[in-house]
Amino acid sequence: MHWEQILATRMTRMKASEIRELLKLLDQPDIISFAGGIPDPALFPAQAFRQAMGQALSDAQCATSLQYSVSEGYAPLRDWIAEQMALIGVPCTRDNILITSGSQQALDYLGKLMLSPGDTALVGWPTYLGALGAFNAYEPRYDRLDPGSNREAQDFRDAAAPGRVKFAYLSADFANPTGVTLDQTGRERLLDMAEDLDIAIIEDAAYQALRYDGEAVPPILATEIARKGDIEACRTIYCGSFSKTLAPGLRIGWVCAASPVIGRLVLMKQAADLHSSTLNQIATHLVAREHFAAHVPMLRETYGRRRDLMLAALEREMPAGVSWTRPEGGMFTWLTLPEGTDGAELLARSLKTEKIAFVPGHAFFPDGTGRNTIRLSFTLHEKPMVDEGIARLGRLLRG
Amino acid sequence: MHWEQILATRMTRMKASEIRELLKLLDQPDIISFAGGIPDPALFPAQAFRQAMGQALSDAQCATSLQYSVSEGYAPLRDWIAEQMALIGVPCTRDNILITSGSQQALDYLGKLMLSPGDTALVGWPTYLGALGAFNAYEPRYDRLDPGSNREAQDFRDAAAPGRVKFAYLSADFANPTGVTLDQTGRERLLDMAEDLDIAIIEDAAYQALRYDGEAVPPILATEIARKGDIEACRTIYCGSFSKTLAPGLRIGWVCAASPVIGRLVLMKQAADLHSSTLNQIATHLVAREHFAAHVPMLRETYGRRRDLMLAALEREMPAGVSWTRPEGGMFTWLTLPEGTDGAELLARSLKTEKIAFVPGHAFFPDGTGRNTIRLSFTLHEKPMVDEGIARLGRLLRG
Repeated sequence: MHWEQILATRMTRMKASEIRELLKLLDQPDIISFAGGIPDPALFPAQAFRQAMGQALSDAQCATSLQYSVSEGYAPLRDWIAEQMALIGVPCTRDNILITSGSQQALDYLGKLMLSPGDTALVGWPTYLGALGAFNAYEPRYDRLDPGSNREAQDFRDAAAPGRVKFAYLSADFANPTGVTLDQTGRERLLDMAEDLDIAIIEDAAYQALRYDGEAVPPILATEIARKGDIEACRTIYCGSFSKTLAPGLRIGWVCAASPVIGRLVLMKQAADLHSSTLNQIATHLVAREHFAAHVPMLRETYGRRRDLMLAALEREMPAGVSWTRPEGGMFTWLTLPEGTDGAELLARSLKTEKIAFVPGHAFFPDGTGRNTIRLSFTLHEKPMVDEGIARLGRLLRG
Repeated sequence: MHWEQILATRMTRMKASEIRELLKLLDQPDIISFAGGIPDPALFPAQAFRQAMGQALSDAQCATSLQYSVSEGYAPLRDWIAEQMALIGVPCTRDNILITSGSQQALDYLGKLMLSPGDTALVGWPTYLGALGAFNAYEPRYDRLDPGSNREAQDFRDAAAPGRVKFAYLSADFANPTGVTLDQTGRERLLDMAEDLDIAIIEDAAYQALRYDGEAVPPILATEIARKGDIEACRTIYCGSFSKTLAPGLRIGWVCAASPVIGRLVLMKQAADLHSSTLNQIATHLVAREHFAAHVPMLRETYGRRRDLMLAALEREMPAGVSWTRPEGGMFTWLTLPEGTDGAELLARSLKTEKIAFVPGHAFFPDGTGRNTIRLSFTLHEKPMVDEGIARLGRLLRG
């Protein structure tokens, strides 16, 4: 069978992620890992999920929980999410909410919704690797999104020929991989540019609830609603997730946007996987309703303390010429190493000597630059481990 | 915001399914419905899932169940499925299995894997509507698959220009919507044609485990392995599902195929939704391991009896000029009405008068023919309801 001959052209763009391949090598007990961007499993609300599953699978509920359901998602969960969105400046109804199988699926669907081959997506340099993976299936070109620059909309239009610019994608709060937050001025400028280009904005809010200090900046979607008065007039498409606030293993996320966008995504979901797990949506609703308000502050307190430990250790251990971000939330800090240092080469050396793991930064750059950067996650370890791991990183960088 | 201007070209192909829109109208208590192709919720192994969820969320397991996991799926579940595949003539290993979010997702991914715009997919006239929905996103053309005809491979090649034929899709056992099973001769002929065209075969086995009588025909994939000796040499891609044997609400299905196909689908899944719910995969493995062997025969007995009731009622009540299929398994029988009768018009009339529901057949035809056909599902009702419903259908057809 000559599989190559019957593959769609898009498959030439779908390659194994270097990072994910790498992460498989890191699963050794003697390695201190700052690599994976995962929540601490010790903090999962497991007891709450046990109770919720018992209730969802009770005699009264199991005929619903185990059955097919509607593509848009479980209405009480959509209502709960709409209420939460209102709290962060996004008044909306369930008709503005689609439940997805994690926010990764939202990124896939939004690429599928908007990108024809050759169209342009604006993304950060660096940006979330999984967004590039999702979009690549739809064969776009990328151009550099940098709300801090003074680039004119006409430049983007010219660069995008022969396709057109379709959307700007970004994580505005504690972005993966940099941990950086876009300030209000940057958000306003981004909205101006999107108006000018008549494109959508995809706001990836995966980490937004995990702010440890500093003042919250309203979501881009909230800023746009403040301008226009109504979500129905907005071009920002907000992607949320329970993966970082409750647990990723249930694969429940959502899209919040103007109802014509949601309507089209519902059709897409119907054709692509019918609906997300009915049972998991019902259980997530029960856990969110009863525990979200208390659980998330506990996460903030724990992860915030771990971030502080890591920043303090970096301060102590990093040699001159290394700089790093000081995130106000999320899971990551981002190190810029001296020019000429190669993050991938450093990791290869680390696995033989110091045995610490991190993610080399260049994979997050659509143009393959950024070789002298690395990403560290601070969610998993407490004091002795963080101090030891960062001390090893210091030795590695000096050695 | 001018959404139409930033949609991908594929979105012109994604329309609301008439049938699904229709089904929403049928949710009235006084209607006897033979419309939805859903399992009877009273038969769900709810107690088994309660236990399995308790175990999957126990202190020992919850850190795994609630966490991110690998895109290919939970290894013990893949091993269990590989063992089951061996029992039906498909010896394979976990490397030949990808876990998907229901077999609908498998159809979406297989379209994405193989179809570039303008390529041709061979499908039945009629075929599963959800397969057309999934494939439409990748902008194919359709040509008529009919393993009973003597059409030459060259005809398909000519008709497919300017793209090429990529695959033949079919449900070989108790197909949705017809209930018909392809015999061994037809399967051999299909394999010959696929060899000749050098295309893949997508075998949708969603109903395969639900055989009520007659002799089992080996899966197309088993027939191909019998020819070639090894799944790695095979062009058939088998899509399985727990939706009809355990419960659809968990969204767990699988693809079984040569490992190069699975490898590419794993990359695709990583980019599209990371992985199917870890928790649901673990729970499904526990339920399948402990209960599948006893649960499926109970389903066969129950659904088989309901099929008999429906066939007997049709025999009694249908006027001359109506014919129907006698399925050996699955969920559906397929009625051909006298020429000139319109299934959609009949349903509209039924909702005002006799109050029975069914699915008009023409939506299952890629070319929009088949107006004088309707689909009846026999999974939900027992004797008095079936007799009453089919008697009403008889009156409707005579009146």
